Amino acid sequence: MLSVFSDEHFMRKALQEARKAEAEGEVPVGAVIVCNNAVIAKAHNQVERLSDITAHAEIMAITSASNYLGSKFLNDCTLFVTLEPCIMCAGALKWARLGRVVYGASDDRRGFMRYGKELLHKTSKLEYGVCHDECSLMLKAFFKQKRGV
Amino acid sequence: MLSVFSDEHFMRKALQEARKAEAEGEVPVGAVIVCNNAVIAKAHNQVERLSDITAHAEIMAITSASNYLGSKFLNDCTLFVTLEPCIMCAGALKWARLGRVVYGASDDRRGFMRYGKELLHKTSKLEYGVCHDECSLMLKAFFKQKRGV
Repeated sequence: MLSVFSDEHFMRKALQEARKAEAEGEVPVGAVIVCNNAVIAKAHNQVERLSDITAHAEIMAITSASNYLGSKFLNDCTLFVTLEPCIMCAGALKWARLGRVVYGASDDRRGFMRYGKELLHKTSKLEYGVCHDECSLMLKAFFKQKRGV
Repeated sequence: MLSVFSDEHFMRKALQEARKAEAEGEVPVGAVIVCNNAVIAKAHNQVERLSDITAHAEIMAITSASNYLGSKFLNDCTLFVTLEPCIMCAGALKWARLGRVVYGASDDRRGFMRYGKELLHKTSKLEYGVCHDECSLMLKAFFKQKRGV
């Protein structure tokens, strides 16, 4: 049974966000930020809509969560994101001192893990592979359709 | 004589932005983005004012320039920033494919150069040390005052 407060539960919320991106023709990545078991921010990739490469789901979720809490530090929060963050987003997660970072699918080409966990803040916990197949399949289907095959 | 279109000229514009940050009690970092010898975006660090760690001068300058040009890629642009970009900002500069990146003071502790130039896009040119002393002194004075010494 899926607990209301499990990582899977919150990753499914991030997947719902990713589906919004998908519906808008964006690379389907979604994120939510959770504090005390409540979702305080959610966002999806809007790079194409805004013509702005900084409009990654994680960056917008951080801005939203910081605004909600009135704090630039998010050390009591967990970020759930459907895809391994890029270097830009890992840098942002470090500055924001996220308590925990959980991602679904891996991104061998553009993910931050090429440089290792030290790109995050030393106090941040890291988990990955939550809902991996669902997160990964959504991305694969998107790129397959984009290539027209 | 200072040419109107020299790197020094544009770095002084970035320094003007940094002074705005300083006046607001922010870490004094400023940035401008130049396209065809015209400043199309300028921004200063607003992390404290906005309680948002993504509000670095470079991130806001990229968003502003992309909005102005209606393009997520800035390959015909040069970014001038008074301090060596951090990992987050270097990642953003890579995504935006900046034509050229010019920074003033170095940041041995938090700058992206610890990981090398490959953090930027392979087509981006890089220069540094422009108005180095002026950029660096402004930062040193800020932190000295902050420490109350």
